[in-house]
Amino acid sequence: MVTLSVTGGDVLLPDLTTTRADVLIDRDSGTILEIGSDLEGDETLDAEGALVTPGFVNGHCHTPMTLLRGFADDKPLDHWLEEDIWPAESEFTAADVRAGAELGVLESITSGVTGFADMYFHAPEIAAVVDRAGVRALLGHGIVTVGKAEEAARADAEESLAFAREYDGAAEGRISTAFMPHSLVTVGAEYLEEFVPKARAAGLPVHYHANETQNEVSPIVENHGVRPLAYAAERGLLEPEDFVAHGVHVDDREIELLSDAGTSVIHCPASNMKLASGMAPVQRMLEAGVSIGLGTDGAASNNDLSMLDEARDAAMLGKIAADDAGAVSAETVVELLTRGGARALGFDAGRLEPGAPADLAVIDLEKPHLTPSHDLVSHLVYAATAADVRHTVCDGRVLMRDRDVRTLDESAVLDRAETAAEEIAARVGA
Amino acid sequence: MVTLSVTGGDVLLPDLTTTRADVLIDRDSGTILEIGSDLEGDETLDAEGALVTPGFVNGHCHTPMTLLRGFADDKPLDHWLEEDIWPAESEFTAADVRAGAELGVLESITSGVTGFADMYFHAPEIAAVVDRAGVRALLGHGIVTVGKAEEAARADAEESLAFAREYDGAAEGRISTAFMPHSLVTVGAEYLEEFVPKARAAGLPVHYHANETQNEVSPIVENHGVRPLAYAAERGLLEPEDFVAHGVHVDDREIELLSDAGTSVIHCPASNMKLASGMAPVQRMLEAGVSIGLGTDGAASNNDLSMLDEARDAAMLGKIAADDAGAVSAETVVELLTRGGARALGFDAGRLEPGAPADLAVIDLEKPHLTPSHDLVSHLVYAATAADVRHTVCDGRVLMRDRDVRTLDESAVLDRAETAAEEIAARVGA
Repeated sequence: MVTLSVTGGDVLLPDLTTTRADVLIDRDSGTILEIGSDLEGDETLDAEGALVTPGFVNGHCHTPMTLLRGFADDKPLDHWLEEDIWPAESEFTAADVRAGAELGVLESITSGVTGFADMYFHAPEIAAVVDRAGVRALLGHGIVTVGKAEEAARADAEESLAFAREYDGAAEGRISTAFMPHSLVTVGAEYLEEFVPKARAAGLPVHYHANETQNEVSPIVENHGVRPLAYAAERGLLEPEDFVAHGVHVDDREIELLSDAGTSVIHCPASNMKLASGMAPVQRMLEAGVSIGLGTDGAASNNDLSMLDEARDAAMLGKIAADDAGAVSAETVVELLTRGGARALGFDAGRLEPGAPADLAVIDLEKPHLTPSHDLVSHLVYAATAADVRHTVCDGRVLMRDRDVRTLDESAVLDRAETAAEEIAARVGA
Repeated sequence: MVTLSVTGGDVLLPDLTTTRADVLIDRDSGTILEIGSDLEGDETLDAEGALVTPGFVNGHCHTPMTLLRGFADDKPLDHWLEEDIWPAESEFTAADVRAGAELGVLESITSGVTGFADMYFHAPEIAAVVDRAGVRALLGHGIVTVGKAEEAARADAEESLAFAREYDGAAEGRISTAFMPHSLVTVGAEYLEEFVPKARAAGLPVHYHANETQNEVSPIVENHGVRPLAYAAERGLLEPEDFVAHGVHVDDREIELLSDAGTSVIHCPASNMKLASGMAPVQRMLEAGVSIGLGTDGAASNNDLSMLDEARDAAMLGKIAADDAGAVSAETVVELLTRGGARALGFDAGRLEPGAPADLAVIDLEKPHLTPSHDLVSHLVYAATAADVRHTVCDGRVLMRDRDVRTLDESAVLDRAETAAEEIAARVGA
């Protein structure tokens, strides 16, 4: 057994108290062995003056969209997609997807993310990046059938199923998969009805966008006579292992459906604000017992992949949405940021205790904006930023030590992404 | 003449385009001499791979409140003030105020802030820190008269006036001052009527909180029969040189009053979200011609003093408030962050051009979250964070070089703040 000891930090325990302790990790199994005093490991990671937290889980992302960071801003979702994003994405080659995924995963590691969910095309490219980078991910091929001939639509759905079947358990188990219809309005009912049973037969969860804007609600109400999540439930898309992105425009009955089903919602506050999609009723959903995680969505609508930004945004927007400064507290947000996201994605992670996966981030506290030390949970949510992450560990492996990413060549990744992005912009005539 | 050249960066010009250029500065006069190619200075500041922007202006702060960062969170304004903040502040000694101001100014310099407005007590302590740290500041003593005997109330108002008279122009002109009644509800009408004319006679602007919550609107409507900004105008508190903090609950008539008067509003989106105060109608105010700057408010309701966080929050919340993703665009926010704040505070800064004060920040762009380089203005607002600031220059002097603050001893400032904060918490029994 080869061990790693994360020493001298304040360790954030599952009850959200902190204790000055070492964390001893079995690198072979990738799990935490012990949290306590004077734990020596074969390798040491210095956490003095730092907070040791569970690694952050980004529950909804499209990592290759980092190539479109700043490409188009300040537009509502439909115009932004139709006029800017989709034309640019139609120019993405497999190599572009790989370059964008590398950039997104690099940014994630530098910001303390140890696990994420990704929906995109050329998904095998993303899987290759995840394998090499050492993070944990739930991946899938996003299906769009509207505007496509039946053959192309069916091929898209088949591809999502085939990818999910083939890659589940890849990268020594760090990759899991889901069947991923893009949304309830961009995938026709007939495809959901045909393919969701096949996904279930393969033991796959389903991940999709739901109720992000009013424009995703009205067509379903008009065409099917029920609200989107009732429509989803009727088609078997609301199971405990499923998770939906956004959940902004949900009514009380839909909140009850989510709670009863045990389906998780990934709240994406930055994207919802930037696209003016609306304010998800996070406090109401929490009170109803809905399981919630946080997500950045793609970098083009955020514009970063820092989950610490997302945590702060969730607390801030949650209070405005509830008209209550006591809503969506710092403690609640830390749960969503770690355990909530892990639960949604079916990861056993999100907590620091013996037997848990060794997925963690070490946050440097010796900074002006993290002084004084009245409350470290408050600091994590309201004041810490991605740049405060000192080390990132996933599955017992050190992915970043002292801001140096060990599994990706940062300079080469930045160069490839810049070149790919410039070439896409040139091809699309921007 | 001793010169400083900021070399090789992308310089953000007043029209919000960028150009690869050097910026030559006269350190004696503290002004920009020239922006162009191959400008050699006696001293050089490397800006390769970086964006050179006007220094950020924090239009509303209470820097010593950094000592209460994380002391109390997730409570609405009135409970938070009465149960936590005011009892703790009543324990602040002059030395505590100095320690907190040092921490706040240190954090400001590390996040690219070159100028700020501060309202607090023991204001001479803050002036001493500003003098030493090299930043630009508009300072004042905040007056509260409610709940005080007449003698104490008058003494508070006299102190604000005396401080403003004495310190205006201090620190070689980097310090300016204002008369600062805390708010329209915490200072009695009789004191405004007596002292505001005295402030005008001394040539002083007036800065106060206005319309932050509904609880600041209703009492004035009930007691005086008009909304707060009409009440302020009637008492001579709405002049072009004045600036109000917050302006969240303003109606159309009040927006018109602000626009007609030329009084600036300092928008504090993070504080407004964290305290669930509400959403300021920023886009409506902009369209009506109101002059707007951005502010962090105190660190206890934010919880940091990074103006780049505030910029992102302003863009994000502005879109939700307007229900329009096109509202409060990145370009608009950069104006508020720099020139808007400078105009509000009466600083000549906020723009990079020959003759302007040499107040600037250099933002390192060679980071995963700032790649690719489609749009640097977008990056500044939506993706850059305080940690990306490489150098800070104010009045032609290098305050931070390569993240090393030259005018304050960072480690000593952190130690003093931590000790002061712990002692305050102990005294207040927290």
